[in-house]
Amino acid sequence: MSETIADIGEFGLIRHIGDVLPPSGAPVGFGDDSAVIDIAGPVVAGVDTMVAGRHFKHEWASAEDVGHRAAGAAMADIAAMGGRCVALLVALSLPAETEVSWVVDLMTGIRDEAEELGAAVVGGDVTRSDNTVVSVTALGTTGRAVTRSGARPGDVVAMAGRQGWAAAGLTVLSRGFRSPRALVQAYQRPRPPYDSGPSAAAAGATAMIDVSDGLLADVHHLARASGVLVDLDSSAIPVADQLTETSSAFNVDPLTWVLAGGDDHSLVATFPAGSQLPGMFTVIGRVGQAASSGAGVAVDGRLWSGQGGGHEHFR
Amino acid sequence: MSETIADIGEFGLIRHIGDVLPPSGAPVGFGDDSAVIDIAGPVVAGVDTMVAGRHFKHEWASAEDVGHRAAGAAMADIAAMGGRCVALLVALSLPAETEVSWVVDLMTGIRDEAEELGAAVVGGDVTRSDNTVVSVTALGTTGRAVTRSGARPGDVVAMAGRQGWAAAGLTVLSRGFRSPRALVQAYQRPRPPYDSGPSAAAAGATAMIDVSDGLLADVHHLARASGVLVDLDSSAIPVADQLTETSSAFNVDPLTWVLAGGDDHSLVATFPAGSQLPGMFTVIGRVGQAASSGAGVAVDGRLWSGQGGGHEHFR
Repeated sequence: MSETIADIGEFGLIRHIGDVLPPSGAPVGFGDDSAVIDIAGPVVAGVDTMVAGRHFKHEWASAEDVGHRAAGAAMADIAAMGGRCVALLVALSLPAETEVSWVVDLMTGIRDEAEELGAAVVGGDVTRSDNTVVSVTALGTTGRAVTRSGARPGDVVAMAGRQGWAAAGLTVLSRGFRSPRALVQAYQRPRPPYDSGPSAAAAGATAMIDVSDGLLADVHHLARASGVLVDLDSSAIPVADQLTETSSAFNVDPLTWVLAGGDDHSLVATFPAGSQLPGMFTVIGRVGQAASSGAGVAVDGRLWSGQGGGHEHFR
Repeated sequence: MSETIADIGEFGLIRHIGDVLPPSGAPVGFGDDSAVIDIAGPVVAGVDTMVAGRHFKHEWASAEDVGHRAAGAAMADIAAMGGRCVALLVALSLPAETEVSWVVDLMTGIRDEAEELGAAVVGGDVTRSDNTVVSVTALGTTGRAVTRSGARPGDVVAMAGRQGWAAAGLTVLSRGFRSPRALVQAYQRPRPPYDSGPSAAAAGATAMIDVSDGLLADVHHLARASGVLVDLDSSAIPVADQLTETSSAFNVDPLTWVLAGGDDHSLVATFPAGSQLPGMFTVIGRVGQAASSGAGVAVDGRLWSGQGGGHEHFR
């Protein structure tokens, strides 16, 4: 039998695709949060797709919420390069029985999220499909593009934005509750720290990523791309009071939400030691030499196994 | 009951979306083949999506064919603005049971089609979905962007590229045949006249569109956007010998393929009378004042009803 995506997982698939692609000649091509393209620009471009039933459930998120989330995910990818989103393209694949009002509300949410940055939807595509797929391409400008691969031993690791809130909100919803509202809303309408991306770039960030698969999973990606060991200090990672309070009611360790949650689109960046960090960043760890077992992420000195703090969509 | 997409059709839906969107501030925003964005560029950006079972069937097109078709459709949208594609982003939504080799072949087709223009895949996204959705964003450069809306009475209408071939190939396949190969291949791997777009722009084209919904349907779009009547001369529209020969075996009027076919991605452009047309363009009609019944397209002086020569995906 032929190998399937279920066999090799999402990242295995992406590696296979990368093997097919020749070097793009672009400053940043395949494999980072966004592409940077020299079109007398440079232009930063990324795409993010949400599928109904998988990335959102109609009973847990209004169409406007889905719009905010889809646009936010794409725009956060631009911020993670140190860029600022200026335009969006929206490709919609929709069942014929989709209500028009749902699509109008969806686009309203996308438009409003874009307007947070003065960005605009400038194009798109609509096709019919058996299930609902929302694919958002974000285009932006950047001064200096910050990739995943520039972290160096000795750098400090810092985080901007809320982390763990959306995961907590999802737990609340999946257990049939609607409150605490702040957590549910954090899931329904994330607030990615868009400004922190360009600020980090200006402050000399050596590497950056947005947290969409999980804090550990994404820092792992950054560490692997940079060929370093990132050691996170669990006592330095902010755990909001709301998470702690709610976690006891749900019998969950709040740090699980913070380490495994991905939907807040917080930003993690590395900076040379002694850098003046932008105010929105909190130091959460340090970059060291790759361990004998290879590059990766550790928490309080213990190497992360690659499981339990993130997810691959195809497993 | 609430209104559904089935009620209002694809273009009705796009109008609803347009109503939600404020003016983008972009030179060309929502509603044209591609967006043109001033990022010290300008950058031309468009997105095109193909859904399995709707835009392609696995038994009629190999994964590589699908890749060529998906990339070609997106890149033709750039050419239709007078632009040249330089980069692609590919968003894939795939069932977990998809074979890896299918995806590798798909990306190979996309890569190879991009290389026709020296363009490269620079990013993308992979998500799980119940059905296969391939969404390609194309980014390009342009000197002068040619929109749909600049046609003026007195202009000549000209076409570049093959037209009707892919539709004929689809007819052949859908009746269970595999030949004539040239027609089947035209469906499986269209050859959009990429170079004709920038050439038309340089030659002073006043409006341009790529034929993806059908020749009549797309010229109708151009005519409506320009507020004019486009009168096509059926005797001037090239009908290839291969189409005529095959049509008799299938008992089809070959002009139906030419007028209704959309998958060749030929380009239709309007030029001021007396212009020196680029060699690949053939004059097929003339632009006149909008009829009392409004803007639209006519063939040999008879106004097209809006049906029979194209399709809306949601009806």
